[in-house]
Amino acid sequence: MRRWSFAKGHGTENDFVILLDRDGVLDLGEEEVRFLCDRHAGVGGDGVLRVVLASHVDGGDPHTWFMDYRNADGSIAEMCGNGIRVFARYLLDEGLVSGHELEIATRAGIKPIAVLPDGSVRVGMGEVRLTGEAVEVTVADGRAYDAVGVDVGNPHAVAFVADPAELAALPLWTAPSWTPAEAFPAGVNAEFVAVLGERHVAMRVYERGSGETRSCGTGTVAVAAATHARLGGSSEPAQYRVDVPGGSVEVELGEGQAWLTGPAVIVAHGEVALPGGRRHRTLED
Amino acid sequence: MRRWSFAKGHGTENDFVILLDRDGVLDLGEEEVRFLCDRHAGVGGDGVLRVVLASHVDGGDPHTWFMDYRNADGSIAEMCGNGIRVFARYLLDEGLVSGHELEIATRAGIKPIAVLPDGSVRVGMGEVRLTGEAVEVTVADGRAYDAVGVDVGNPHAVAFVADPAELAALPLWTAPSWTPAEAFPAGVNAEFVAVLGERHVAMRVYERGSGETRSCGTGTVAVAAATHARLGGSSEPAQYRVDVPGGSVEVELGEGQAWLTGPAVIVAHGEVALPGGRRHRTLED
Repeated sequence: MRRWSFAKGHGTENDFVILLDRDGVLDLGEEEVRFLCDRHAGVGGDGVLRVVLASHVDGGDPHTWFMDYRNADGSIAEMCGNGIRVFARYLLDEGLVSGHELEIATRAGIKPIAVLPDGSVRVGMGEVRLTGEAVEVTVADGRAYDAVGVDVGNPHAVAFVADPAELAALPLWTAPSWTPAEAFPAGVNAEFVAVLGERHVAMRVYERGSGETRSCGTGTVAVAAATHARLGGSSEPAQYRVDVPGGSVEVELGEGQAWLTGPAVIVAHGEVALPGGRRHRTLED
Repeated sequence: MRRWSFAKGHGTENDFVILLDRDGVLDLGEEEVRFLCDRHAGVGGDGVLRVVLASHVDGGDPHTWFMDYRNADGSIAEMCGNGIRVFARYLLDEGLVSGHELEIATRAGIKPIAVLPDGSVRVGMGEVRLTGEAVEVTVADGRAYDAVGVDVGNPHAVAFVADPAELAALPLWTAPSWTPAEAFPAGVNAEFVAVLGERHVAMRVYERGSGETRSCGTGTVAVAAATHARLGGSSEPAQYRVDVPGGSVEVELGEGQAWLTGPAVIVAHGEVALPGGRRHRTLED
């Protein structure tokens, strides 16, 4: 039986199991990630955030922390807009960084972070780009919506619905389909949006490989960019409030770049017993 | 900000947040239970098990522990066949009882418990009774099944499907309906069963007020009793293996009584930060 210390936190209810592994010694395989994220047999989370010094990952800066993000199925992901806010909150709470401006290394590069006076966290999300792709997205009851493609490092299809009531009623218990199929050969995250007011929208998201989630950081950025384009938005900097089922975030757009600001909370600290014995590496491994 | 210590455990993936409150001093209200059970914003669980000495609840035996079970929505429940196994496992692990036979006080009376050499826990579930109620249960795709009523202290409707493939394909993402409606005026837990072999069945369950779950202790007892009657079972003691999505349990039937044996695991220990300030009671409360 192995015991690991963990923390659990969330950003707009996108939740994570956090493992502090300063020197990169945890033997964190797919099996361990799936167990930690299992909501019934394990701790429960949408993903794992391993906190490791960049110098132990790729010989990076010994003063920068690297966010090793894993999806609940054990696969590796480059970046997570909600996860990185929780990661930053954890670093501050644990005294692993000082000051309220920092950089976090990810597989998608170094991300600039600011922790604001109200406790929310602002993240430089990098480039956001409308692809010009026009697709039709069909939900479970057969209703089809026109959608636009948005690239936030990962692919999104954003569809607008008539109003909040239609948004609430959307059957997202199974994956939407899209045509033409070749528009997104590696799959797509599908967002559905209702405009609530000036620069204020509500969205729901069906995440590729995960199903409907309470929030998706890159999805909120995609939705803000698609809304801005739909409203004929200028290239002047613009700020959108995006409501998701798990809360609300702000997205700033300017010069093709996006910044995401939202809450991040650490809820619990604990120790978890991993089932099974330690896997011993052999010379054959 | 209040901090509470907790443990998390599960029995066939029916999972619980456990709070040790020896002297009954925790101010555990509906709000706290909903937060603790919230799978994204809190710790996550199907319910909360508060561990309190019976003498602090109703002037009961000072050497007996009382299981204060709460559903995830904050409501009170009398008994939980998976929860009480996890409760017993916790008592033993924490050294709160000695010996492998014990009694646990619940709102449904004192329950006898034995912890077996393989670590599984056997619970006296009390009376199980076929009500003679014949109903028709209809699932989301419109398919209807004949079902029988079973009373395990709470109401169950048990329907048999043709085979495991049909069981796996059942659309249980929304509540089944039943006719006549007056058969279960307070709602019902609906079980669907495929016979796998001699005294071996697989089931899925839609729990009243919860949706489909990975396991339901009283449901496994209801299914064993309904299967035994369907097969023209004698009044001799009989033992059934019941597979649920979260694992497998054994149900013994004899003289109208049932015993449930299954796994119970403590996965994690921790400390949780409850949001908001402490609610101060006033003279008006």
